[in-house]
Amino acid sequence: MRTRRQLLDAAASAFLEHGYEGASIGDITRRAGLTRGAVYFHFASKEELAQGVLDEAVTTEGVRPQVLKLQELVDTAMALAHRLPREPVLAAALRLAVDNGVRRSVRTAWPEWIALLTEILDDAKGRGETLPHVDPGGTARLVMSSWTGAALVLDGVPDGRDLEHHIGALLDLLLPSIAVPAVLARLDTAAGRGARVVGAAAHDTA
Amino acid sequence: MRTRRQLLDAAASAFLEHGYEGASIGDITRRAGLTRGAVYFHFASKEELAQGVLDEAVTTEGVRPQVLKLQELVDTAMALAHRLPREPVLAAALRLAVDNGVRRSVRTAWPEWIALLTEILDDAKGRGETLPHVDPGGTARLVMSSWTGAALVLDGVPDGRDLEHHIGALLDLLLPSIAVPAVLARLDTAAGRGARVVGAAAHDTA
Repeated sequence: MRTRRQLLDAAASAFLEHGYEGASIGDITRRAGLTRGAVYFHFASKEELAQGVLDEAVTTEGVRPQVLKLQELVDTAMALAHRLPREPVLAAALRLAVDNGVRRSVRTAWPEWIALLTEILDDAKGRGETLPHVDPGGTARLVMSSWTGAALVLDGVPDGRDLEHHIGALLDLLLPSIAVPAVLARLDTAAGRGARVVGAAAHDTA
Repeated sequence: MRTRRQLLDAAASAFLEHGYEGASIGDITRRAGLTRGAVYFHFASKEELAQGVLDEAVTTEGVRPQVLKLQELVDTAMALAHRLPREPVLAAALRLAVDNGVRRSVRTAWPEWIALLTEILDDAKGRGETLPHVDPGGTARLVMSSWTGAALVLDGVPDGRDLEHHIGALLDLLLPSIAVPAVLARLDTAAGRGARVVGAAAHDTA
């Protein structure tokens, strides 16, 4: 298990630095400080390493049940915004998932993300938290793709704000078209939310 | 000029197929059906080819002045959504602009896009088209990054809808947080808008 983890970390840093096509198994092996044999025991190819990195990326780790289902949607988005800059495996998964070459040979996590967010929005709709015209599937796609766009684009055009700030502002822009006013007023999208969600989960585990 | 255009088209298709790191000048030369000498006359390096492709991507071609400035924002987004699947140079520019390797060596078009959208939103605000709390710079960043996320992610998870449909739906989600109600009701975000904007411009030119 520990070797597998070392390998995923090494693969993530190689993919982030050189892209999928540019990264080599040799480089990943060196970064992990392992032998070729140890690598091939866990992953038969670069494709399998990319798949391993991508499989780590569907995670609601830290997100706990909330009185409002839409707060769980917010918490998922904010916790990931907090974790992405701190966890190279997540950052690499995001890059791989928008790489045309990877998409041809490896299964991305987009369908699972859409299913997960659709389920939260379906529940929220069932409880009367959403505006009547909201389509959970279509809204899930747009929330997911907008989150991804912010994560991919905005760190390349620095304005002194971090991803948590950007995702909070994005949610403030999107949620008035999703939540009924009484629910909207109770949702917490402040920039510190992601850190608190992730921190509370770490506390539970400790 | 014609050789330059051939080269940019060839570079775009190579970057789309192999990514920036994976594409080679030799491959681009072959695709363009030119000699190395002809290539180096126009572009000294792969970086310069990437820069040439990226420089094509800041374009409001086809967007004409409208009674409502926010309709110009919509038209910019919808016209690009119509053109992106039809113009490999635009599609390649989008991929290059979120590539970490490219960002290290080449100037992306993000700051120009932010400036362009900020200017439209500033004008819209001056005319009373936007809600009072709207921050033109921050909103421009989020509109741009959400557009990019939709273009990068949603064509990889087909649902039978095209990019114009997705961008129309995205604008419907964002605009209620941007436009005052009287303006919102008059904005045209229907899926056919992009084609009409681009078509009208072609008619003007003919």
